[in-house]
Amino acid sequence: MLNEDRPKEMSRRQFLTTVGKIGGSAALFSVMGTMGLLSPQTLKAAAFTPPGKSDLALTSRNGKKVVILGAGIAGLTAAYELGEAGYDCVILEARARSGGRIWSVRRGTTVTEIGAAKQVARFAPGLYLNAGPMRVPQFHVTMEYCRKFGIPVEPYNNVNDNAYFYGENIGALSGQKIRKRAAKADIRGYVAEMLAKAVDQKALDLPLTAEEKEKLVTYLKIEGDLNADLFYKGSSRGGYKEEPGGRLDAGVIRDPFDLKAILNTGFGNFFSSEYTYDQQMIMFHPVGGMDAISDAFEKRLGNRIKHHAEVKEIRQSDSGVRIVYTDLQTGQDQEVTGDYCICTIPLSVLKDIPADFSPAMSRAIRSTDYDSSGKIGLQFGRRFWEEDENIYGGSTLTNLDILGIFYPPTEYLSKKGILLGYYNYGPNADKLGNMTFQERENHALKQGAKIHPQYYKEFETSFSVNWKKIKYSLGGWASYTEEDRKTHYPLLCKPDRRIYLAGEHVSYLLGWIAGGIESARLVVTDIHQRVMKA
Amino acid sequence: MLNEDRPKEMSRRQFLTTVGKIGGSAALFSVMGTMGLLSPQTLKAAAFTPPGKSDLALTSRNGKKVVILGAGIAGLTAAYELGEAGYDCVILEARARSGGRIWSVRRGTTVTEIGAAKQVARFAPGLYLNAGPMRVPQFHVTMEYCRKFGIPVEPYNNVNDNAYFYGENIGALSGQKIRKRAAKADIRGYVAEMLAKAVDQKALDLPLTAEEKEKLVTYLKIEGDLNADLFYKGSSRGGYKEEPGGRLDAGVIRDPFDLKAILNTGFGNFFSSEYTYDQQMIMFHPVGGMDAISDAFEKRLGNRIKHHAEVKEIRQSDSGVRIVYTDLQTGQDQEVTGDYCICTIPLSVLKDIPADFSPAMSRAIRSTDYDSSGKIGLQFGRRFWEEDENIYGGSTLTNLDILGIFYPPTEYLSKKGILLGYYNYGPNADKLGNMTFQERENHALKQGAKIHPQYYKEFETSFSVNWKKIKYSLGGWASYTEEDRKTHYPLLCKPDRRIYLAGEHVSYLLGWIAGGIESARLVVTDIHQRVMKA
Repeated sequence: MLNEDRPKEMSRRQFLTTVGKIGGSAALFSVMGTMGLLSPQTLKAAAFTPPGKSDLALTSRNGKKVVILGAGIAGLTAAYELGEAGYDCVILEARARSGGRIWSVRRGTTVTEIGAAKQVARFAPGLYLNAGPMRVPQFHVTMEYCRKFGIPVEPYNNVNDNAYFYGENIGALSGQKIRKRAAKADIRGYVAEMLAKAVDQKALDLPLTAEEKEKLVTYLKIEGDLNADLFYKGSSRGGYKEEPGGRLDAGVIRDPFDLKAILNTGFGNFFSSEYTYDQQMIMFHPVGGMDAISDAFEKRLGNRIKHHAEVKEIRQSDSGVRIVYTDLQTGQDQEVTGDYCICTIPLSVLKDIPADFSPAMSRAIRSTDYDSSGKIGLQFGRRFWEEDENIYGGSTLTNLDILGIFYPPTEYLSKKGILLGYYNYGPNADKLGNMTFQERENHALKQGAKIHPQYYKEFETSFSVNWKKIKYSLGGWASYTEEDRKTHYPLLCKPDRRIYLAGEHVSYLLGWIAGGIESARLVVTDIHQRVMKA
Repeated sequence: MLNEDRPKEMSRRQFLTTVGKIGGSAALFSVMGTMGLLSPQTLKAAAFTPPGKSDLALTSRNGKKVVILGAGIAGLTAAYELGEAGYDCVILEARARSGGRIWSVRRGTTVTEIGAAKQVARFAPGLYLNAGPMRVPQFHVTMEYCRKFGIPVEPYNNVNDNAYFYGENIGALSGQKIRKRAAKADIRGYVAEMLAKAVDQKALDLPLTAEEKEKLVTYLKIEGDLNADLFYKGSSRGGYKEEPGGRLDAGVIRDPFDLKAILNTGFGNFFSSEYTYDQQMIMFHPVGGMDAISDAFEKRLGNRIKHHAEVKEIRQSDSGVRIVYTDLQTGQDQEVTGDYCICTIPLSVLKDIPADFSPAMSRAIRSTDYDSSGKIGLQFGRRFWEEDENIYGGSTLTNLDILGIFYPPTEYLSKKGILLGYYNYGPNADKLGNMTFQERENHALKQGAKIHPQYYKEFETSFSVNWKKIKYSLGGWASYTEEDRKTHYPLLCKPDRRIYLAGEHVSYLLGWIAGGIESARLVVTDIHQRVMKA
């Protein structure tokens, strides 16, 4: 209603658009900063200017046909953004579905891992397992497409202090499930006590004034819930042995663990998993399965996606590109030509496809490693983690080889549910991934039952995935050392004549949907600038 | 499918029920403990055995009519649980609605605060403000009723590292909005550095072995994101000045704040607000408004709730209770009699109602203080906190007198939204609560606009509540000192002949819905035992 600060006749968007038109993006960002709207995240989101239809109308030539390889998120984004601008795009996709590693497994979903038997999902109707990405940080560009396409999202609850830590061979607390809140309260309490006393007793040579030291001690008292004498004697943050309630139920705080015992568990080393940049609260996921995102793109792209098209050769000349593919429904080889190619095929797959890449590019492709990644969805007939243990979402972490149990962040309070019995990557994923489906199930149940004795009683069915053995993916995500980023990685970021690579592997957001989107948007901008210059 | 651990012929519930019948609750809890199902939370939930219909059938006498004063959560719970067992209950409720302080304000809701003009909510259809309780810890008994009644819930996102801290007169960082993640990373980083170095340099006399000290330093390195030399030099956890993205966008981590500057902000003292026991993730709220809970009870109680019934006198004798009330629709005084009375009227209101309490009980009632509590809902035409700043739920905290801004934890990505422009309690709530509605709105906008310059442009309408001035409530929640809990509080927990008090004020869960429920369940058990003995 009130609007004292800015011209009344102009909406914020109109205003910013006008500034952008007059002064370009530098002026725009400067004004946004003045308006308190600028952050590196919004800057990043604002930095992409989709090509406009009007731009293309200005060019008379034909160089606007783009062949896109792969209908994963990078291919879908590229086709959508180029298509909006009037480019003629076609996506070749080997699978019957779009999405790539965005894959929500439901009743009837089948998969045949390389060298393994066929697996059919027998989940109850309405339940799903996000076999690939399962969560979206609130500041990723992915959210922008959810907003644009009207995809309903719900919080992905990545933090739950009522879930457990569980360890074996960790000293006095081995084999006990310990609420996360208890480990956090005790470790942070003892650590705050150590430092607070040291500062208070002037045992440390700190570059702080007396007043600042007092502020530090005050902070540590609050952070660790220390008593007036700076001792940690337990805290309600760690939970109760008798819960507070009505009338005279005042509650009795649990006894803290012994300093040595809790330190020897190593649980403190797990804490930061919740506050790395891209795992911080709050995260989101689409209601009903991550593939709502790829479905929304697919709906807008329609028959521009050619499914069952397995790429066999990637050819280019000075005048265009030519892609040979097998139509898996007819078994016939076909080809499609275009002016440019955007190749989003994972490098683990691409390295074995004959292609006209420069020798340096070929080497870079072959030099890129992929991480293993594996998950098992376990369906239980009763959400015992909610009903018996008051755990709604989040994860239990353990030093067992299952690494963790992830509780379903959806359909709370309902009857059945699918939890992640493990979500592994690296060598551990290979170990479990090399088992048969039945062995994986047995193993996940056996290990998980140590934490949840209800497992065997309530278990119904499972579905597991080892991404290293999933055809057309052959890995969880690209993996680069710091050295790789300096040597062969930069080559992957440049077009090889008429072929552009996109995908999470051409980003610094490895394994994230946003990595695919951001790289695709850079390629779209690149191609559009080239076309406009031509 | 598999069930190796327990007898196959018996379900877990059957098994536990059998144990309970044979051995009583002590045996039951012992067995549950052995089965790994026992926690203080589940024990508390399991401790209430609702009275059964079959029990009552055994008694031939008539002493089963209970008059309940107040249709807040305590009254609703008592009426529901007693009603299920065949008791004849009536609730007298002065308001036209049930729920008490459970109050979801929507378009058309009106309120006249004491000494103020009438306020009408002009919110857009579908939007709401939870003027009273707005979140439920996952382990509270409240969740049990949500499950039982099929009330859909969604996460209440209480933690958001992308929201801000903002302070004035706090030194070098005054007047800057700082992402929570940045303050957390820097303060925790510097603190970890101080202790890690002290331990590493053996400056402290700690009761730890060399190996344990090494584990401590390892923890501190991870917890603070320290470098190999144990220095905190910033961390991606605190965010980026250039976001990582596609291709060569490696991201540039923000520069950490100076130790003194961030220490002087006092922001570290805010951290623990997220991890006190009852604020820890994950929390919930019913989809569409907290009053879904009171509505669900009301639906099951039907005409056993008498609305527009303002209690005037509470009388009792050796043989029963007699309540005089004014029917606010007719203006006529009426009375209702019963065997027992459960009085859930807030003590701030009860103290002025003529009642046959013992002198000691009357003194205890009059001695109980109530905290102020106030909220303002601000409706904005655009969810700029999401669109411009990537903040989805959670809160921004500040040393301004608004204390905080709470972003709506629902309907993410939609167009409009109602955020909490302030949520105050204590003296601060009085300050803002004593303003007129228009002054509150002006003040909330003026202060909030320091943090969100979009405020004035996007603001549409407000609705504010000062619970001290809301008739029939007269306060946010009961407040007891430790001394109070020893002196007059215990009296409130005992029946005064035939009158029993229930409500959050008769609990150790002050201000929580669960406090009302837990106290009501204890009263229900008490009355039932008395009836069964009679």
